[in-house]
Amino acid sequence: MPKQRLSSIPALGQEKRLPLIEASLAAATNSSAVFTRLYPDAALAAARHADAMHVAGVTPLSALAGLPVSIKDLLDVAGEATLAGSTVLRDATPALHDAPVVQRLRRAGAAIIGKTNMTEFAFSGVGLNPHYGTPDNPADALVARIPGGSSSGAAVSVAAGICVAAIGSDTGGSIRIPAAFCGLVGFKSTARRVPTRGAIPLSTTLDTICAMTRSVDDCVLVDSLIADTPLIVKSISLAGLRLAIPQAIVLDQMEDHVARSFAAALSRLSAAGAVILDTPLAELDEFIALSQFSGAEAYAWHRALLARSGNGYDPRVGKRIAYGAGMSAADYIHLHLARDNWIVRMEQAMAPFDALILPTVPIVAPPTAWLEASDEVYFRINNLVLRNTAWVNLLDGCAVSLPCHADGTLPVGLSVVGAAMADARILSIARVIAAALESA
Amino acid sequence: MPKQRLSSIPALGQEKRLPLIEASLAAATNSSAVFTRLYPDAALAAARHADAMHVAGVTPLSALAGLPVSIKDLLDVAGEATLAGSTVLRDATPALHDAPVVQRLRRAGAAIIGKTNMTEFAFSGVGLNPHYGTPDNPADALVARIPGGSSSGAAVSVAAGICVAAIGSDTGGSIRIPAAFCGLVGFKSTARRVPTRGAIPLSTTLDTICAMTRSVDDCVLVDSLIADTPLIVKSISLAGLRLAIPQAIVLDQMEDHVARSFAAALSRLSAAGAVILDTPLAELDEFIALSQFSGAEAYAWHRALLARSGNGYDPRVGKRIAYGAGMSAADYIHLHLARDNWIVRMEQAMAPFDALILPTVPIVAPPTAWLEASDEVYFRINNLVLRNTAWVNLLDGCAVSLPCHADGTLPVGLSVVGAAMADARILSIARVIAAALESA
Repeated sequence: MPKQRLSSIPALGQEKRLPLIEASLAAATNSSAVFTRLYPDAALAAARHADAMHVAGVTPLSALAGLPVSIKDLLDVAGEATLAGSTVLRDATPALHDAPVVQRLRRAGAAIIGKTNMTEFAFSGVGLNPHYGTPDNPADALVARIPGGSSSGAAVSVAAGICVAAIGSDTGGSIRIPAAFCGLVGFKSTARRVPTRGAIPLSTTLDTICAMTRSVDDCVLVDSLIADTPLIVKSISLAGLRLAIPQAIVLDQMEDHVARSFAAALSRLSAAGAVILDTPLAELDEFIALSQFSGAEAYAWHRALLARSGNGYDPRVGKRIAYGAGMSAADYIHLHLARDNWIVRMEQAMAPFDALILPTVPIVAPPTAWLEASDEVYFRINNLVLRNTAWVNLLDGCAVSLPCHADGTLPVGLSVVGAAMADARILSIARVIAAALESA
Repeated sequence: MPKQRLSSIPALGQEKRLPLIEASLAAATNSSAVFTRLYPDAALAAARHADAMHVAGVTPLSALAGLPVSIKDLLDVAGEATLAGSTVLRDATPALHDAPVVQRLRRAGAAIIGKTNMTEFAFSGVGLNPHYGTPDNPADALVARIPGGSSSGAAVSVAAGICVAAIGSDTGGSIRIPAAFCGLVGFKSTARRVPTRGAIPLSTTLDTICAMTRSVDDCVLVDSLIADTPLIVKSISLAGLRLAIPQAIVLDQMEDHVARSFAAALSRLSAAGAVILDTPLAELDEFIALSQFSGAEAYAWHRALLARSGNGYDPRVGKRIAYGAGMSAADYIHLHLARDNWIVRMEQAMAPFDALILPTVPIVAPPTAWLEASDEVYFRINNLVLRNTAWVNLLDGCAVSLPCHADGTLPVGLSVVGAAMADARILSIARVIAAALESA
């Protein structure tokens, strides 16, 4: 079972891939609510191919050759209706082609274990799904806690050791929130770097196809496979790096365990020579007023389907999508202009720093039962978990969430955030931060 | 007076620029409804600078150094309120910067004579303006005919010999229609090639900043000055060029003089070896249903101004902008998707040909009095003059309108049309077509 980083998996010469994939498939089959569909034949074929390439003396295609990965249920696989965690699309026209990211995984020889469960249509950050169940967060063996969402099954597929990487999507935090709640690395790349074609959209303006892994190094490897253009991520030193903590919004309502874990991480980074600064970043106060893209754009996509099959939607999803009906074209056009203006001001405010750092989510993963019991709790927690992440999508920026909690405690994520196309720099900073936190 | 092509203007060594600019300014001052503002001091300074550069032995900056050009009233000039042919913006905040195209003209040493009159807010193809008057089309000395629009003063500034080039904008034909009506070359480049910043928008999706000149060669020179990236326009032969005439829509309701002029041009091109083909291009039938961008996007820009100063608008403009209020965000988002889909199908249909050719406008410039007298005539003619040009903006394409009429007759334009970013190819085809038509 690959509950480990890519770098710690024995090379092909030392260990065959077929037993690894057999074990992954068995674990996937035994898991609950993590996968909506499995691909045993194709995954085993990928493993046999990797093994055969080794026997034939051919260098494997990529670091993922014959290794188990998962894909989120919203990605097209040729010949299947894409469901996006819903039941209303079961009779939809099957996809003609694999989504480009799925094609790239196959070309790299990855063994795609299955499609992972998710919040219906990706429209929440907590990860509940009334149709397929909600996977338990592997971080707590005693209490059933949410894994975070919307890439819920994706996170659990890696945290439970079934896969080495999970491809998902992030429109407001759907990669970073589950990464933070499950103790993984989640990288929301700059949206334009990875094709969104062949994925059911939530917000065509904000959607990003990206991945969760167990380390920043793995994250760089997977990003280079799925992105249009691979990055050159340099090795840098923490000494002298200017890391700024926004004072607006992101530190509010922090739970004690999050505050203590974040503070301990800052101490370690300071000790390693990083310059930790406060910055007001008052522009963040405007971001809620600008957060209307998902509603408007999801409604445009769902309008006909809601009219036909609205009763089949999770009511907590369908009702919120329907709000988008009220927006006028003029308001939508102004929203884009206001966003462009906000991005310019945000980038100016961020320019003096190498990166922003902040807690990815201000709370630890709450018990699933709390959210199932009450709409009020559901929406309050949903808003809270998205608060520190969703503005990065509005910024068109990039961010890595890294684990920053002590072993044996509930996972806490620390986000390293940069502007659009700062991906290589943010990943190199995230890597050196992760190394400092691990060596402590 | 430079009623001539750039290539026929004597070089700096043979003729000073100062007398030329003095003559241009005198003609501009004596013209009626062509300019909304003149810049005598700056234009004379540019002329003196070009002359001084020559005396000092410095090679002039560009082919336009010290030569008279005009800019459309919707382009920002630092320190002035930009009016766009309106009176309701007289108290607007002055522009902080020159628009990028204005900056580029100044850097090239051009003598900017003045800002040219236009349809209020560029919202029509005929060129009437009730606030500043409608300039007469110089092609007819007996009957006052419209110059076409919205870049009405721009066209007259070149056709009357005041300027060698006019910078305007084209959202549905506003460069090509007046070029056709006034006997000029009008080039609607691919929109993304020239910055639209610093121009009052009509449709942020369709607006193109581009120019009118007296020849295709001049058009290439001016394009290279205002575009982000200059083009390499090759010399080619007409022999074997595959030029296709769309059979849908564009040949309907042609006036006899237009039909005869177009047919005569085709004969000459055939005789020179071009392969003239018919193509159904039935996709054109869909374009009216997709023509809702200007309404929606203009309303978004004008909403607050209409509420405050709606009574000050030309009623033929204000009323139509207000229609945009009715569109929902979902409809607008679907409109973009439908356009993207239509572009893919149009580009497939156009792929077998080197270019499409068609009459730019199916009629000659009508008498101004007809349109002033009746809303019914105004809107019917407005729709007709935009019909053959507006779909090129929807296509995100490029097109050159060339004169194709016999000397001494009313001007008729022939359009050479290509898909997005085919600018260099379309200009080289336009140049060899123009040469064939002139040599006949």
